[in-house]
Amino acid sequence: MACTGVTAGRIVEQRAAAAMPGLAGIKAARSAAGKPAARAVMAAAPARRRTLRVAATATTDAPPAAGTANSNGGGTRVMIIGGDGYCGWATALHLSARGYNVCIVDNLVRRNYDLQLGLDTLTPIASAHERVRKWGEVSGKHIDLQVGDICDWEFLSQAFTSFKPEHVVHFGEQRSAPYSMIDRQHAIYTQSNNVLGTINVLYAIKELSPDCHLVKLGTMGEYGTPNIDIEEGYLTVTHNGRTDTLPYPKQAGSFYHLSKVHDSHNMHFAARAWKLPITDLNQGVVYGVRTEETMADKALINRYDYDGIFGTALNRFVVQAAVGHPLTVYGKGGQTRGFLDIRDTVRCIQIAVDNPAPKGEMRVFNQFTEQFSVNDLARIVTAEGAKLGLEVKTVSIPNPRVEAEEHYYNAKCTKLRDLGLEPHFLSDGMMDSLLQFAIEYKDRVNLELIKPAVDWRKSPVSVATMSAAVAKQ
Amino acid sequence: MACTGVTAGRIVEQRAAAAMPGLAGIKAARSAAGKPAARAVMAAAPARRRTLRVAATATTDAPPAAGTANSNGGGTRVMIIGGDGYCGWATALHLSARGYNVCIVDNLVRRNYDLQLGLDTLTPIASAHERVRKWGEVSGKHIDLQVGDICDWEFLSQAFTSFKPEHVVHFGEQRSAPYSMIDRQHAIYTQSNNVLGTINVLYAIKELSPDCHLVKLGTMGEYGTPNIDIEEGYLTVTHNGRTDTLPYPKQAGSFYHLSKVHDSHNMHFAARAWKLPITDLNQGVVYGVRTEETMADKALINRYDYDGIFGTALNRFVVQAAVGHPLTVYGKGGQTRGFLDIRDTVRCIQIAVDNPAPKGEMRVFNQFTEQFSVNDLARIVTAEGAKLGLEVKTVSIPNPRVEAEEHYYNAKCTKLRDLGLEPHFLSDGMMDSLLQFAIEYKDRVNLELIKPAVDWRKSPVSVATMSAAVAKQ
Repeated sequence: MACTGVTAGRIVEQRAAAAMPGLAGIKAARSAAGKPAARAVMAAAPARRRTLRVAATATTDAPPAAGTANSNGGGTRVMIIGGDGYCGWATALHLSARGYNVCIVDNLVRRNYDLQLGLDTLTPIASAHERVRKWGEVSGKHIDLQVGDICDWEFLSQAFTSFKPEHVVHFGEQRSAPYSMIDRQHAIYTQSNNVLGTINVLYAIKELSPDCHLVKLGTMGEYGTPNIDIEEGYLTVTHNGRTDTLPYPKQAGSFYHLSKVHDSHNMHFAARAWKLPITDLNQGVVYGVRTEETMADKALINRYDYDGIFGTALNRFVVQAAVGHPLTVYGKGGQTRGFLDIRDTVRCIQIAVDNPAPKGEMRVFNQFTEQFSVNDLARIVTAEGAKLGLEVKTVSIPNPRVEAEEHYYNAKCTKLRDLGLEPHFLSDGMMDSLLQFAIEYKDRVNLELIKPAVDWRKSPVSVATMSAAVAKQ
Repeated sequence: MACTGVTAGRIVEQRAAAAMPGLAGIKAARSAAGKPAARAVMAAAPARRRTLRVAATATTDAPPAAGTANSNGGGTRVMIIGGDGYCGWATALHLSARGYNVCIVDNLVRRNYDLQLGLDTLTPIASAHERVRKWGEVSGKHIDLQVGDICDWEFLSQAFTSFKPEHVVHFGEQRSAPYSMIDRQHAIYTQSNNVLGTINVLYAIKELSPDCHLVKLGTMGEYGTPNIDIEEGYLTVTHNGRTDTLPYPKQAGSFYHLSKVHDSHNMHFAARAWKLPITDLNQGVVYGVRTEETMADKALINRYDYDGIFGTALNRFVVQAAVGHPLTVYGKGGQTRGFLDIRDTVRCIQIAVDNPAPKGEMRVFNQFTEQFSVNDLARIVTAEGAKLGLEVKTVSIPNPRVEAEEHYYNAKCTKLRDLGLEPHFLSDGMMDSLLQFAIEYKDRVNLELIKPAVDWRKSPVSVATMSAAVAKQ
């Protein structure tokens, strides 16, 4: 299914816009987005017989050449579960812009977590319905939005039967470790929602779309911090003179991370028993907020979480630097993890879709590009802040988590590179633009939300939503 | 807390009864049970201040000497979750007979599975309430019966608060691999029930009985069939010049087995984060039905499952031999697993309770005594049948499971032996008595129930309870 919907002229204009650094490039892209788009009718996906309109405005800094193998969606049907979330939304637009036929499946519960806990994204995000409407206006491309819960089999099976996905990209899980540790109920909710939802997806593929490739988001946190190198999913062991390649041992550090360990085991079984093709992406900590598509219009902007429950260390530090608050390092700060730019997340998903796993195999990629310790991040933010005239201080606060604060960490991440990933490294000007972005929105910052609100050791049986919502320290 | 409630005279009589082989010994024990029992008042457990009456009739073939360390319960409060099930009931009586203060927590759902699927135990079992009433009558000992669901936090927390367990022995999970593979709903039920119930138990211990030792029943099936030796829970790996001891990699073969893999990971985290003392018992396939206590009265008899969903291979073969049906070997029959006698199960639990794990550690024991392949079992049953004049044939039928049928298997099981387990081996006359037992009850056999009713590859999304209930082949 070749897609010829992108005119050469628009691509050139888009490339030129994308080549501009920082905000200048984004503004040029926005300007381009405002113009009447060149349109063309592409071959409709056989199962849908829907005419899709394709416009160049949504292509990005690495736009696909029309008809190029493995770079152009060609109407491939990709269901993105959790497509209204941070990574999911960016991925949905990235793929839609490249000619994939995208269906977002989301119960919008991520927005509800914020309401429950009194949190808010730094960036004002539009409603899910307004987002896809605006995307259609900006890009001329249709994204199907199916609002419902994958734990609800009646809904999920109907979504599968109507959309007939060729790939399912599954971001649809509760993804915060602190949220899972708020109290017993949140631990139960997290494992129930994540593990049972994924079992439903496995059955849906097996019965309703048996050739469908599952791309599932796991986490580097599944591995914990072993004292040996972390391989990509499997470890070849020689023991008492015999050798086997076995699933890499898992030592997750929260009920959230554990839920993804459980998913990995369930998927490994389903791949073997039912011959499903599965890619398990053990993603690192994602930072940044801007992809070309999400910056194409205010209504497309992505969420940016900096709070103590959903915010990651780097996003938190950037906001703290922007508002003149000391960076809060948990404990000794030697905690080391894999990190990646959200522009690489969306590209990794596309690579996984374009190069599906063989049937019967659960393939595992470690999806990150660089390793940093928390102290490394604090140093980088401090140095970048100084360039902008910000005086950034760092304080150590008691670690609310149970984790090693000084440890060996060496994780492999070559498989996605081998398939074509060209990383955006943190040193490539990213910090500068992130800081400028945070400064732009700093009037929306609520510093109370940044404090750690969930203590791993406490995690009570009494309902603790309120104490998590009102950060104490 | 010394217990002096067992008179020497009764012990001698009991030992003599237990020394008799097969049914003779059981009848003698039953006869002893009918006599007025010697009674004595023991020191009440501090938290309960209840006077327990102790009678010798319930002591067994290895009765504890009064006051002996690590052999006498001394009123230790042990909550047995799933205490109405096959292993749980035998364990409850074993510990109660030895002076432990036992509380059974059970929602009785195991009996409901039989009703749903039209199955029945070979042995006619009494109701849970009648069982504990009769046990009180036979032994003079009280077992607390709390009927409720550990997934119901309100119930579980009340059970903990009122009983204040010093040890929780957790058998309370859906334990059949075929049941978990009936259809999507049964897969979801199994993982939800097992994983979430265990999370509740972890929170209950952490918050309500923080010094309580958890003894959790896992399964040898968590390991799958790796091409290297299976260690007890952990594997020391040297990789790229560095060494660490990590959780043994898991490759479970059904949604049931996977649920126990998930439990193990969750418990490992809880031990580290909350400093809980946990023993994870990776149990092999249990065979046999008779323990001294369960044979002390008809109303105390244990269940014996031989059907295609809850029956294990050996129990199934024994019933087939007894009724003149060929033994049904799944596929090539090279599937090798660890096995143990139920008399060793109850002893292993006692050993774990008497030697608790240290706080902050999840200790893993492999709980089996011998390895057999399915073909080994068929040969043994055939040979033992011949001694009783039975002509036993074997047929191979298509394997309903997805599993290796010829593979390396060498699993370690030394830790429980080191703590004092003296195994009953299958060759020690067990087969003879099992066969005689099956012959005694053969009028209750329904051969239709033995056929495999659940196919791993089919496991549909449509509700398949009825097709599982009406075995087809």
